[in-house]
Amino acid sequence: MEISLERTAELLSNNSNIVITAHVHPDGDSLGSMLALDKCLSSMGKNVQLILDDAVPDMYDFLPGTCKIIKPNSQKIKADLLVVLDASDIERIGHVRAAVDAPVLNIDHHISNTKFADYLFLDSDAAATGEILFKLFKHMNTTIDPDIATSLYTAIATDCGFFRYANTSSNTMRYCAELIDFGAKPNLISEALEARPLAAITNLSKMLDTLELFFDGKVAAITVLPEMLTDNDNTEGVINYPRIIEGVEIAIMFKFVEDGICRISLRSARVDVSQLALSFGGGGHARAAGCTVSGTVAEVKEKVIGAVIEHLQADYYG
Amino acid sequence: MEISLERTAELLSNNSNIVITAHVHPDGDSLGSMLALDKCLSSMGKNVQLILDDAVPDMYDFLPGTCKIIKPNSQKIKADLLVVLDASDIERIGHVRAAVDAPVLNIDHHISNTKFADYLFLDSDAAATGEILFKLFKHMNTTIDPDIATSLYTAIATDCGFFRYANTSSNTMRYCAELIDFGAKPNLISEALEARPLAAITNLSKMLDTLELFFDGKVAAITVLPEMLTDNDNTEGVINYPRIIEGVEIAIMFKFVEDGICRISLRSARVDVSQLALSFGGGGHARAAGCTVSGTVAEVKEKVIGAVIEHLQADYYG
Repeated sequence: MEISLERTAELLSNNSNIVITAHVHPDGDSLGSMLALDKCLSSMGKNVQLILDDAVPDMYDFLPGTCKIIKPNSQKIKADLLVVLDASDIERIGHVRAAVDAPVLNIDHHISNTKFADYLFLDSDAAATGEILFKLFKHMNTTIDPDIATSLYTAIATDCGFFRYANTSSNTMRYCAELIDFGAKPNLISEALEARPLAAITNLSKMLDTLELFFDGKVAAITVLPEMLTDNDNTEGVINYPRIIEGVEIAIMFKFVEDGICRISLRSARVDVSQLALSFGGGGHARAAGCTVSGTVAEVKEKVIGAVIEHLQADYYG
Repeated sequence: MEISLERTAELLSNNSNIVITAHVHPDGDSLGSMLALDKCLSSMGKNVQLILDDAVPDMYDFLPGTCKIIKPNSQKIKADLLVVLDASDIERIGHVRAAVDAPVLNIDHHISNTKFADYLFLDSDAAATGEILFKLFKHMNTTIDPDIATSLYTAIATDCGFFRYANTSSNTMRYCAELIDFGAKPNLISEALEARPLAAITNLSKMLDTLELFFDGKVAAITVLPEMLTDNDNTEGVINYPRIIEGVEIAIMFKFVEDGICRISLRSARVDVSQLALSFGGGGHARAAGCTVSGTVAEVKEKVIGAVIEHLQADYYG
């Protein structure tokens, strides 16, 4: 059932034992939103648990409160409410669904949302789930301390590519201006997010060497193999290299994480790639989507590049 | 003579024949500011000329009005006012000073400003000269059309690293929110600025391979040689690769543009590098500065890296 912002605030206010989760392969928006909502609800005296079916990448350690995030275990948790943040599909929260016995409130901004939840607050105009939470907190008269400001700023800034993507609205900027006044430090946040071990720069050079173009230069792909990654390495931003090449309409990053498993990122300058990702069991936004495909390097690449070209051909030739 | 914002507005309003210039090696702030001020003054019926002692890089062609920018020639121009934007030193405008006979109004945000002008409006708290102009236009009740909004947004966004540098204030964000409402499109601006020819990605890989660390990993340098550049290639952003490495305090990019001439960019996470740049005849901000040094690759690198290490040693050991 889709509900209003007011009803969302009521649901959170009227329940005491609340579990917060978000999608696997966590990013700035999902983690920042979890931590900000925890801080908000905890300050109201509620019993809040943060459960995520994935590890928190090291780069987010600077966010205040990440140590409170734990993985689900075999013990079933009975709660009043399971808040699912930034996930458009129940599958995206992994084992948390089975581990928690509670009605589900889903707060999300993905247009591909499958409306799986008991209660859904969906705002697909919001650049980030963090943006929705900021509106919600204002409505709830939450005191925005520097920790909440840092988490929300990180959530919003990362999901709009530091104010470079089409989802960046004047409200996105205005909310972030307020968050700076509440204590968020844009330079410290971006430095923390950007910091890379030396090996990452060397690895990047190897990744760039895999660049391939297809379909008359309209499709560009980068292939990341396990040997190009060192411990805790992340590939955030690598998709931008094929994306920014003149003439490229769809950029792909193939990231082979383990034998036979490839995580795929798609970026588009114009056409909708969310349906394409959905056809491979993934999801996302019109211009930024992703999916996971199994197979050998050759199989996965052939299958996905074929589908991407077909998608563009359909767009060009109808 | 330092003047107020009000007096700056008066000077512009009370003069009819105005030449606008900015520093050589133009960037988003200098060009965006020139074009926005031209549009503002032209709409007031003034005779405005845009003169710059350098070529406009192709990447800024999307800015409305760049075709109006011409180089100085041997003919002396008599004007009522020469407006020097975003330049902290008279040397930075090249031959324009000799080519124009007019009192100088300097509008700038560089803390290293040498106060060379007849009239100076300096606001070193502003993230960009574009930010000062936006305040000025509000004061002058200028109608901000989408062209002006695009130029000012580009000016501000590029000079604060798309809202990632320490100079990003809540006002920076608020002004940009307003500029979006006035018609600036953050995604189109960033796409235009980011677009790179295919060769740039291949070249980047070669540049990354030159990465060197010094002084216990606190200094990182990248060396760009002419053969790593193709026509119209730009190296904006390349300095970020050494800058983001964990533990690096000062990042250096050596860009050897022609035989014996090296343009050097310095970035710092903490210490002031503007004095360091000044000691080599350059200038800039505390955390982002630059200079030009002559010599062989080995000579230039030895001299500059030596000075950088000395600068850091003085900071560490007093």
